[in-house]
Amino acid sequence: MRRFATERAKRLLFGSFRSSPPLFSGAPLCSSLSAAAAAMDSAATPVTLDTINPKVLKCEYAVRGEIVTHAQRLQQDLQSKPGSHPFEEILYCNIGNPQSLGQQPVTFFREVLALCDHPPLLDKSETHALFSADAIARAWQILDVIPGGATGAYSHSQGIKGLRDAIADGIAARDGFPANPDDIFLTDGASPAVHMMMQLLIRSEKDGILCPIPQYPLYSASIALHGGSLVPYYLNESTGWGLEISELKKQLEDARSKGITVRSLVVINPGNPTGQVLAEENQKEIVEFCKNEKLVLLADEVYQENIYVDDKKFNSFKKIARSMGYGDEDLPLVSFQSVSKGYYGECGKRGGYMEVTGFSAEVREQIYKVASVNLCSNISGQILASLVMNPPKVGDESYESFDAEKTGILSSLARRAKALEDAFNGLEGVTCNKAEGAMYLFPRLHLPKKAIEAAKAVKAAPDAFYAHRLLDATGIVVVPGSGFGQVPGTWHVRCTILPQEDKIPAIISRLKAFHEAFMEEFRD
Amino acid sequence: MRRFATERAKRLLFGSFRSSPPLFSGAPLCSSLSAAAAAMDSAATPVTLDTINPKVLKCEYAVRGEIVTHAQRLQQDLQSKPGSHPFEEILYCNIGNPQSLGQQPVTFFREVLALCDHPPLLDKSETHALFSADAIARAWQILDVIPGGATGAYSHSQGIKGLRDAIADGIAARDGFPANPDDIFLTDGASPAVHMMMQLLIRSEKDGILCPIPQYPLYSASIALHGGSLVPYYLNESTGWGLEISELKKQLEDARSKGITVRSLVVINPGNPTGQVLAEENQKEIVEFCKNEKLVLLADEVYQENIYVDDKKFNSFKKIARSMGYGDEDLPLVSFQSVSKGYYGECGKRGGYMEVTGFSAEVREQIYKVASVNLCSNISGQILASLVMNPPKVGDESYESFDAEKTGILSSLARRAKALEDAFNGLEGVTCNKAEGAMYLFPRLHLPKKAIEAAKAVKAAPDAFYAHRLLDATGIVVVPGSGFGQVPGTWHVRCTILPQEDKIPAIISRLKAFHEAFMEEFRD
Repeated sequence: MRRFATERAKRLLFGSFRSSPPLFSGAPLCSSLSAAAAAMDSAATPVTLDTINPKVLKCEYAVRGEIVTHAQRLQQDLQSKPGSHPFEEILYCNIGNPQSLGQQPVTFFREVLALCDHPPLLDKSETHALFSADAIARAWQILDVIPGGATGAYSHSQGIKGLRDAIADGIAARDGFPANPDDIFLTDGASPAVHMMMQLLIRSEKDGILCPIPQYPLYSASIALHGGSLVPYYLNESTGWGLEISELKKQLEDARSKGITVRSLVVINPGNPTGQVLAEENQKEIVEFCKNEKLVLLADEVYQENIYVDDKKFNSFKKIARSMGYGDEDLPLVSFQSVSKGYYGECGKRGGYMEVTGFSAEVREQIYKVASVNLCSNISGQILASLVMNPPKVGDESYESFDAEKTGILSSLARRAKALEDAFNGLEGVTCNKAEGAMYLFPRLHLPKKAIEAAKAVKAAPDAFYAHRLLDATGIVVVPGSGFGQVPGTWHVRCTILPQEDKIPAIISRLKAFHEAFMEEFRD
Repeated sequence: MRRFATERAKRLLFGSFRSSPPLFSGAPLCSSLSAAAAAMDSAATPVTLDTINPKVLKCEYAVRGEIVTHAQRLQQDLQSKPGSHPFEEILYCNIGNPQSLGQQPVTFFREVLALCDHPPLLDKSETHALFSADAIARAWQILDVIPGGATGAYSHSQGIKGLRDAIADGIAARDGFPANPDDIFLTDGASPAVHMMMQLLIRSEKDGILCPIPQYPLYSASIALHGGSLVPYYLNESTGWGLEISELKKQLEDARSKGITVRSLVVINPGNPTGQVLAEENQKEIVEFCKNEKLVLLADEVYQENIYVDDKKFNSFKKIARSMGYGDEDLPLVSFQSVSKGYYGECGKRGGYMEVTGFSAEVREQIYKVASVNLCSNISGQILASLVMNPPKVGDESYESFDAEKTGILSSLARRAKALEDAFNGLEGVTCNKAEGAMYLFPRLHLPKKAIEAAKAVKAAPDAFYAHRLLDATGIVVVPGSGFGQVPGTWHVRCTILPQEDKIPAIISRLKAFHEAFMEEFRD
């Protein structure tokens, strides 16, 4: 009851009602400013760019930045004036959003969701003609673990316990090591989970987070919004975006020498925007590094199902740590997973979870409290997260059709990745690493000096200049490398591998024609 | 292209790769600390209560606080050892979560959601036996406005344009004044929308937000997490929780005299936890006050459909402002709405929106950018938000059954509110205002001195002490008033009106028996 006592003591500190406003729990009234400062600062203050939170101003998110706004304008043009541009449609290769480009949802998952949305269907005989038997059975199982079967109720702040049990089972089956449902926090996609961890760890700009460069800009945006410092470590493009421990150590020491307290290491595996898949030995070194340096390992593992090469395999960092004999007490480790990626690509459902291990009970209580302020994540997303971690199994009625859908999507993605990689590598002055996994290629553009000067003349970064020209000429939307970070003086773009397979040849020939003309125009 | 230029200039400021880490956009590396400070602060720092973000520590959220954790333990007891407590079930009256207590979802809404989750149903003949014709038609309409019909794709960062059109139509029909779909930001419930506005407005603890006391603790929690100051204004319990302009002015001046820049006024109407519904004249005064003082009016209007008295009516603040002749340029105003409340009570769907008016285009762009970092809210919640703002109309096939469900729920809530209000007022030393709206009663407990001393002896606030004793004796979970704020020296509890109607008589008699015994035990 300590908390209550403190609350009461706080209240007793203040005079009677209306003489002085009481200090409200957790949201202090500042009273130590000088009268002059008060007169300066506290008058009526309209909301302008100069008076909003500067952390908001600093935050950037290129994946939906200026180039996408420009693409939306072009799309409106095409609708209002067909033929007004040299292409017929905008191809959004800026964002990992498979279903927006025609990928179909996995039938089994959607059957279960529909049944859970409208449970009276389960009592009707017609339902058996419309839904597979195992989807019906799964919906019953799910409703059974939801208190009162109420899919419209707020759940436990971490998510429905029975769904967390299922997810823990799925993790254990994936890793061969046990998982604890109490470690799972279900979230509306992975992004809010990342924000929660940044909010927990960052106290001021003196706290640093080691992030890969290039990185997915959610990390830089979240660190900016929470007022921390991004400590960059560079992936080595020449070794296929290798993650080198010597680089981690160098950047950690460098940050520490500047007074930064480095709290955490972000690793994105498979990589975004880079597409590399980490080797097991490399992951072991990373775990060892985090353990020795007392860093929270934030493992972005949302592309765990997206692997396109035979010689690489996804290993979760938890599996690696446990296989090294490290337990909860050795290393704080958070794994992020999402229903938006994988073969399912259910971005619009906003489902995901984080598995939080290696924190003390009292710190975990703080994470729980912050989760509670937001009540819970959406129940459809929770259900879907339990499904992707426990898809149909051999012998289930849906298994064959499910497996055909899954394999069809993944093998097509692998073909598209290869075709686009080859196409980029076939362009003059462009080099492109393999997409071993994830949903992106991140080709490097070796641009002629004249192009760089032309960009400078219009006050654009060279990669942004290239991306704009590409969009205006072809309708293809890619994101400039500067939105992800890159070695200064190098230029890249991120391009998803997500357009449907029948569109890939046309995309490649448009890209090729554009690039040839661009190089011709700016040849030194 | 100014932003790109700035980006590039930033990069050019730094030496070559690996000599010094570049300042990453929006997440600065702090380099101005002294060497001594660096040596002190920057070593390996494990994650403990002493090293996490103190704003997280400060944040409190009583609605899912200690008493609920205690209730969950009792519930586990009851499951493992039936008969181990003097009650058979836990009655969660701590949170506005209607479907967790047995309220059934509105059929039409769920039919449409199920069809949108699994659109192939729309092509099957059996579907007509399972779904109403207007639900089928509505699902087609909705899929039609979703690009590619893809309910599994990320949408526009503000939400699907066609759904925002429908919501704007619903607002216009409600208010009699036009609404602009570009002003709507769809969100995962109202809570993330509140966080977004706090994040925008709060720069430091010198920025203050005027909040009612008592308040819904999302506000104090969000202000604490964003590092601002809560400037309390007291609702007048003796006039049915009246909101007095003189009190607003007094607290505003008081805060300003302490150097606080007051940015915004939060008004919750209908009130939570207080249940009052503001009169139109009062709302006009509030609008005038915000306009004159250049405050952002944050209008929590999530209970707009929950009105239980004939002499009160919900008026949105936007309608009031427009009826006074005030337009966009006169007053920044944000209205929050949610699918979790009303007669629908779809808490688990996490749908909601904010209507943002009266901000400059450039500030709106910043709100859009922050929304973009989180990609979009969940599409089922977006669809549901469009449905609650456009329910079936007279003549639609579902109208009669829909209206019967709606009226049934609202009239039952009105009866429950009255029965519980009367019950509280019938208890010795308890006074309880009417629940004119919302889902709560906030009775005041005039506790005997002996009870206050007994609470002190166990280091509990008297209202927390009472709530714990009530829970242990009856299984009824209410939240102590200290979680919402109250005039120092007064004590309250918040109790929802949500248990199903057939349980109300038993709840009342358990409450009465407990209270009599409590007063007997502690009578002065």
